[in-house]
Amino acid sequence: QCSLDSIVDKKIQDALTGLELNPFAPAKRISCFSVTNSGKLSFCPAGSVVTGCACGYGCGSWDVGGETTCHYQCNPVDWTTACCCRLT
Amino acid sequence: QCSLDSIVDKKIQDALTGLELNPFAPAKRISCFSVTNSGKLSFCPAGSVVTGCACGYGCGSWDVGGETTCHYQCNPVDWTTACCCRLT
Amino acid sequence: QCSLDSIVDKKIQDALTGLELNPFAPAKRISCFSVTNSGKLSFCPAGSVVTGCACGYGCGSWDVGGETTCHYQCNPVDWTTACCCRLT
Repeated sequence: QCSLDSIVDKKIQDALTGLELNPFAPAKRISCFSVTNSGKLSFCPAGSVVTGCACGYGCGSWDVGGETTCHYQCNPVDWTTACCCRLT
Repeated sequence: QCSLDSIVDKKIQDALTGLELNPFAPAKRISCFSVTNSGKLSFCPAGSVVTGCACGYGCGSWDVGGETTCHYQCNPVDWTTACCCRLT
Repeated sequence: QCSLDSIVDKKIQDALTGLELNPFAPAKRISCFSVTNSGKLSFCPAGSVVTGCACGYGCGSWDVGGETTCHYQCNPVDWTTACCCRLT
């Protein structure tokens, strides 16, 4: 193999290694986790977003504030769980 | 630096700039938002998918139709919220 | 066009084609689907994660086990649906 050839190969490889998604990097996937609080609010940590909420007393009425907060709408207040997801 | 060297560097840089995910592009993230309708159906707009649903009257029984529709299953009918997500 | 030029172009193109996300590959998107079981547990298949759960009898109380299992918390036990998502 000629020297010029291997120099170009190395340049290309170096450039790709700097990419977030290069052939040697693991593919992105969705990762989700739950955050449970007593009371009517539960929060997803920075970098994650709410994809669904669960609530105590069998309550299925909730709303999401600002992409990161689960707000329980039933009475009486019990616990609130945020299902939080992000790309990893 | 020899001229050949800088030509190859430029070629590689040009190719990477054309990538959707290049070193200078922001990383993809999940973005979610809610769509609420009165009645028993709520729809996620094109390009987004349902990750969860919430319903009025505390109802937690719902199903998803065709990736984009939240269908409320309780009686009486109240409101339905679709939690819609997409990559941005 | 000189031969060296086209050789370098081809080398770069070959390297990019090996990338999961190259200019010719479709962009990643979120894909979601539902899995419903009778009983109090429903499972997302390998490669997908739970983003929300729905339950029979209007029950909105559930928790997620190990990223892939929806666990229904109400009595009596009816059906459980897992909303499962992955990147495709």
